[in-house]
Amino acid sequence: MGRVTSRRRVLRIVDGVAGEPVDTLAAEEPLEIRVNGTPLVVTMRTPGDDFDLAAGFLVSEGVVRRAREIAGIRYCLGATADGVNTYNVVDVVLAAGVAPPDPSLERNFYTTSSCGLCGKASLDAVRTVATWSVRDDPIRLDPEVVSGLPGTLRAAQRVFDRTGGLHAAGLFSAGGRMLCLREDVGRHNAVDKVVGWALRDGRLPLRDTVLTVSGRASFELVQKAVMAGIPALAAVSAPSSLAADLADDAGLTLIGFLRGSSMNVYAGAHRLVLKART
Amino acid sequence: MGRVTSRRRVLRIVDGVAGEPVDTLAAEEPLEIRVNGTPLVVTMRTPGDDFDLAAGFLVSEGVVRRAREIAGIRYCLGATADGVNTYNVVDVVLAAGVAPPDPSLERNFYTTSSCGLCGKASLDAVRTVATWSVRDDPIRLDPEVVSGLPGTLRAAQRVFDRTGGLHAAGLFSAGGRMLCLREDVGRHNAVDKVVGWALRDGRLPLRDTVLTVSGRASFELVQKAVMAGIPALAAVSAPSSLAADLADDAGLTLIGFLRGSSMNVYAGAHRLVLKART
Repeated sequence: MGRVTSRRRVLRIVDGVAGEPVDTLAAEEPLEIRVNGTPLVVTMRTPGDDFDLAAGFLVSEGVVRRAREIAGIRYCLGATADGVNTYNVVDVVLAAGVAPPDPSLERNFYTTSSCGLCGKASLDAVRTVATWSVRDDPIRLDPEVVSGLPGTLRAAQRVFDRTGGLHAAGLFSAGGRMLCLREDVGRHNAVDKVVGWALRDGRLPLRDTVLTVSGRASFELVQKAVMAGIPALAAVSAPSSLAADLADDAGLTLIGFLRGSSMNVYAGAHRLVLKART
Repeated sequence: MGRVTSRRRVLRIVDGVAGEPVDTLAAEEPLEIRVNGTPLVVTMRTPGDDFDLAAGFLVSEGVVRRAREIAGIRYCLGATADGVNTYNVVDVVLAAGVAPPDPSLERNFYTTSSCGLCGKASLDAVRTVATWSVRDDPIRLDPEVVSGLPGTLRAAQRVFDRTGGLHAAGLFSAGGRMLCLREDVGRHNAVDKVVGWALRDGRLPLRDTVLTVSGRASFELVQKAVMAGIPALAAVSAPSSLAADLADDAGLTLIGFLRGSSMNVYAGAHRLVLKART
């Protein structure tokens, strides 16, 4: 391992004049996730926490929901032609009785709908496979606490400071205590790593928590939060329309444009504890 | 169409006090791409320029490289249960003699490598399927022109101003003239839309051009540039290590952290026209 970053000499140009400093880049490598020996998906990710990534991906896809449903995870012993284990292939062995995903299916469940594919079909698919409901989660959110989450996340990012190239996903308690932080070149991977950590630690569903992400809130991120039983998602940047629709449909509180002391609440606004309106 | 944005009433909280303005969100909907009637992939994208997206995706995957290799593209006539065409399924009919992608393969060619999966295998895969070489492209880049690209891109983004939620990809001449701009919730989709536009307009390979993207430069974006014959990629934010490796391997000029009058050149630096070093 130890490949979270790599160093590289670059040409740095300022006002047309060049120097040659050494820069640190975020590592990106393919990870193939296998289930019971059958290849399921390849994702480009930052190496590290690969078992969490694989486990979290399977939670997001509705394959597992409890730690005991996974019998084991290991790096594939197969290797490159010169015999070096690349640590880029993990095999998840499911416990007896747990149905593996159908490898003939596409890599995500958007495709379960047929030619009438639309946003509604995507919402239906999540509704069908979600194990836990987040709608009745009693979490209450203090805007002052929520406003502090991006700063906490940013301060705790270890790799971003050196590379400027990693997305972060942080899981927080309602009181603002950080429970888990993961960084990755892909924001969906960072979230899968958080969810996988929670699964393997026996913490699913993640009731009474807020997931904070450094970038935008896509449909996919809201889906992953719902599948993990997380009742609130707070993003520094904009959500998409379908992300807001899914949050509404699932009863998840979706916050976007979380900057300074301001934020927009796109769904589940009843959970915010407000002062009197002006 | 007309679904590039949607409007939504939100709870806006500033210093704990709430109002309820109407916000504009970037639309996100699934698009299923079929080839000769066989489903190939589903991507979450911002509706619009869907034929370009489908065509560009097939260029990136090495399926087509000339406009004439596509006999036609149409929205699938199938529809939702209530008979409404969702415009979320496109079928690309290949010209006679053009081999369709194997639907049993995974959706990208990272997976062509076996258990010895590593970054090098990813580079090898691109090298194997790339049609054009960008290494010998004679383009020369003036840092002053390059510094102006993000501003031009940003000024031309129509949807971002209203939503704050869209990535942009812009294709520029060496002199800084914008040839094509596309926006999407997914940065890879924005690039595929640019490449598909170029394919359908008979412009591949895109010699003597610079692709500028609003965010980070991943392996996938460098791959798409190489597959379209684009010799230079300039990103506002950080590249990943594998993006820099692929750029080196393919002979593409990769610029990152393009901000104000400064930039870092990670590969292909010989194309930058510099003043005397300090």
